[in-house]
Amino acid sequence: MAGPCSVESEDQVLETAHGVVAAGATMLRGGAFKPRTSPDAFQGLGEIGLAHLRNAKAQTGLPVVTEVLDPRQVELVSATADMLQVGSRNMQNTPLLRELGGCDKPVLLKRGASATVDELLGAADYILEAGNSQVVLCERGIRSFDPSTRYLLDLAVVPNLRSRTGLPVVVDPSHGTGRPDLILPMALGALAVGADGLLIEVHPAPELALSDGHQALTIGAFSALMDEIRQWIPASGRYLSLLAQPAAD
Amino acid sequence: MAGPCSVESEDQVLETAHGVVAAGATMLRGGAFKPRTSPDAFQGLGEIGLAHLRNAKAQTGLPVVTEVLDPRQVELVSATADMLQVGSRNMQNTPLLRELGGCDKPVLLKRGASATVDELLGAADYILEAGNSQVVLCERGIRSFDPSTRYLLDLAVVPNLRSRTGLPVVVDPSHGTGRPDLILPMALGALAVGADGLLIEVHPAPELALSDGHQALTIGAFSALMDEIRQWIPASGRYLSLLAQPAAD
Amino acid sequence: MAGPCSVESEDQVLETAHGVVAAGATMLRGGAFKPRTSPDAFQGLGEIGLAHLRNAKAQTGLPVVTEVLDPRQVELVSATADMLQVGSRNMQNTPLLRELGGCDKPVLLKRGASATVDELLGAADYILEAGNSQVVLCERGIRSFDPSTRYLLDLAVVPNLRSRTGLPVVVDPSHGTGRPDLILPMALGALAVGADGLLIEVHPAPELALSDGHQALTIGAFSALMDEIRQWIPASGRYLSLLAQPAAD
Amino acid sequence: MAGPCSVESEDQVLETAHGVVAAGATMLRGGAFKPRTSPDAFQGLGEIGLAHLRNAKAQTGLPVVTEVLDPRQVELVSATADMLQVGSRNMQNTPLLRELGGCDKPVLLKRGASATVDELLGAADYILEAGNSQVVLCERGIRSFDPSTRYLLDLAVVPNLRSRTGLPVVVDPSHGTGRPDLILPMALGALAVGADGLLIEVHPAPELALSDGHQALTIGAFSALMDEIRQWIPASGRYLSLLAQPAAD
Repeated sequence: MAGPCSVESEDQVLETAHGVVAAGATMLRGGAFKPRTSPDAFQGLGEIGLAHLRNAKAQTGLPVVTEVLDPRQVELVSATADMLQVGSRNMQNTPLLRELGGCDKPVLLKRGASATVDELLGAADYILEAGNSQVVLCERGIRSFDPSTRYLLDLAVVPNLRSRTGLPVVVDPSHGTGRPDLILPMALGALAVGADGLLIEVHPAPELALSDGHQALTIGAFSALMDEIRQWIPASGRYLSLLAQPAAD
Repeated sequence: MAGPCSVESEDQVLETAHGVVAAGATMLRGGAFKPRTSPDAFQGLGEIGLAHLRNAKAQTGLPVVTEVLDPRQVELVSATADMLQVGSRNMQNTPLLRELGGCDKPVLLKRGASATVDELLGAADYILEAGNSQVVLCERGIRSFDPSTRYLLDLAVVPNLRSRTGLPVVVDPSHGTGRPDLILPMALGALAVGADGLLIEVHPAPELALSDGHQALTIGAFSALMDEIRQWIPASGRYLSLLAQPAAD
Repeated sequence: MAGPCSVESEDQVLETAHGVVAAGATMLRGGAFKPRTSPDAFQGLGEIGLAHLRNAKAQTGLPVVTEVLDPRQVELVSATADMLQVGSRNMQNTPLLRELGGCDKPVLLKRGASATVDELLGAADYILEAGNSQVVLCERGIRSFDPSTRYLLDLAVVPNLRSRTGLPVVVDPSHGTGRPDLILPMALGALAVGADGLLIEVHPAPELALSDGHQALTIGAFSALMDEIRQWIPASGRYLSLLAQPAAD
Repeated sequence: MAGPCSVESEDQVLETAHGVVAAGATMLRGGAFKPRTSPDAFQGLGEIGLAHLRNAKAQTGLPVVTEVLDPRQVELVSATADMLQVGSRNMQNTPLLRELGGCDKPVLLKRGASATVDELLGAADYILEAGNSQVVLCERGIRSFDPSTRYLLDLAVVPNLRSRTGLPVVVDPSHGTGRPDLILPMALGALAVGADGLLIEVHPAPELALSDGHQALTIGAFSALMDEIRQWIPASGRYLSLLAQPAAD
């Protein structure tokens, strides 16, 4: 899954979507409704952003994952999204989780920045018990003390979750490090520890992005990352099939 | 502010309310809608809980603070509550914050378990910029590594916030430590560092509580705590009036 | 206990010592052997620094607390020091702790920046079991995620330790916050939660200090802090004598 | 590098050494001088432990890495060890680091449990500037809040360090997770992010170990792990050679 942090314009989304599909991405990410630290920061294009995502999907065939913030907007967002994202700030927003439990689309549930494994699985249970069995868990970095990375990407949580649940687990090395130079190695690390997928921020011109530009890859850098991953897949695939066997703790 | 974690029954709320008002509390706390880690845990009595709180207020005169989880319930909860609480899990639930910005009741905004000072003030701005100027900030402990307390109560955030904002700051030593034996010293510590108030969990029979009983004080222990605080108030009051002067950094 | 982070010159130590004794300090702190992150940073004056401390003690009558880094220097340092400090970086330096266990001077043992209560008490046991019963524990802040303070001062550890041990506990709000504007409120908070003493960095000209100048108080600011503490002592004293009673958990 | 946490007996070390060399390990680890939280825990066999390590080396040809705690024992330990380990508790023990800087053996410097990248590199500088250029850095997990693992293994620090230094970086997934079931995936993850080696605890009978038995692999499990790594090496090797090219940030 690849795409910009925020949907900023029709051109930006289309250029990114064409770029990432050519590089081998299988899903387009992009935020229309953005949770931001300050109300004065860019909050997303809202419904216009959803329209741009539908357009990008029509042109590239890529299914779309986008965030929903408000239980009152689940119906609206699910009319566009193929998968609905719950951001880390909302991992324990139980009315939102319950509303998504009544929806027929898969949900990408991002781990809160200081959530334990028990809390992440408890949040998933709110969706599962409300009737939606399609939950994908996402590690995106936790709060830690070293300012040299934005968050601390906790790869051990991937096999830790696999020993507790059969739900797929994906990793977001973009938020998890906040540094473009660490995304490739951490993406390979994520696959090696057993992740089922990756969520990567890509922007045609990171230096002009309205949010999180400092951590986005250019389309060229994303394409190089995908080439690298393909070289590595034979070994990884073998290991992944090994992990998929019933655990003998 | 004192009262049970959850409203569990009419008797429980009334007994607690009479007990804490006699001990000197000036506000009654109690949750009708509860955010819990697991959907299988007690989720609160909902509207019935609100009715019990209204009844307790009618009998004791204590104004009520209670949590709201869902932007669709702000109107319902504000019909009962004198102050609406945003829990730490929802500190960055921006649709909820904006809805509370349109409400005419004060909002008690609890710090997220790994929120920075900037993030807490950013969350407050969502309420303030939506038109509600009555925001009270609350420190309730952050995530840390030592299992000997439930959370780590960060008292330095009180003067840190005071140097950045004129909003009142209160402290919750019950969640912040998770240990009844630490509540009295940390309550005094909170007042000494400049807190404007305290939020303390009290239950007539902590061992029977449906949530957080391990950290609740009995009515007798709360009364003893209030006696202790009163002894200490002359010094504290002097210091608090000093802090209230314009800061000369 | 008050004084400069590092002993830098005879004049600096004497001026500070005269200033802090006039303000009411009862012990002079100052580092002659300094543990620093980089070998290129100022490492302390060593034996010359010890001589300056002896001179300051002779002129003011203040007993001296200073750090020892190396088990081979315990004898040398204890010839000058009235109390030997183990810094947070060395809390689990077991050969040093054992060497101090054979010494007849009190030891000030600072908590490591991510040490649990169990680990701090375990470190104290190395000194106690080697024969030295005079151990003073010191909270000086732990690692956390918010860059708005240098460390996070964990005041709850004070009553937490008091429930586990009879050893005295002191607090260092200078390292624990890294911000001069937070030292007064956190000093009062430390006393309110039951601390037996304070360790405060004072420098005649903080902007010229060779280490940690950003967090040192001027002599005037320290004097104002001591005045404030004296106003507060009657209430605090009452509370402290209460805490000194046998705990009834 | 593989072997027991502590050297416990001649038989235990020999059985482990023969097992791990057969499985493909290239270095034997084992502690003769142990840093422990409590003075009442097993402190290691000391010089007898060193003798057992020399014997194991003579029989298997495996070079030995073992910890040194005390600057006064650097000479003694380096008479046996091919590489001297500085444990995480001693990462900033500057007299020990300086003593190792005067030694002609490589030093394995483990990251402190809450050390930043800057602090780890600063500690390495103490050894390098004292004249010993053979420093190997080791990530072994940091303190975090989730009790489901013992520490949090920070794999991002590996490429983060590679972008700052040419020193080799190895990873210890045994301490870093504290869970045998997570060691294989995290070992593969470590190699994928660019680690130059692994440090793994192996014990012939983990349930009888005198320290850290809960996290040790049996010889059989270690052998299976090495088989898995070998399958994965072709892809990993390709990636490692890519990383070894000059960085173009």
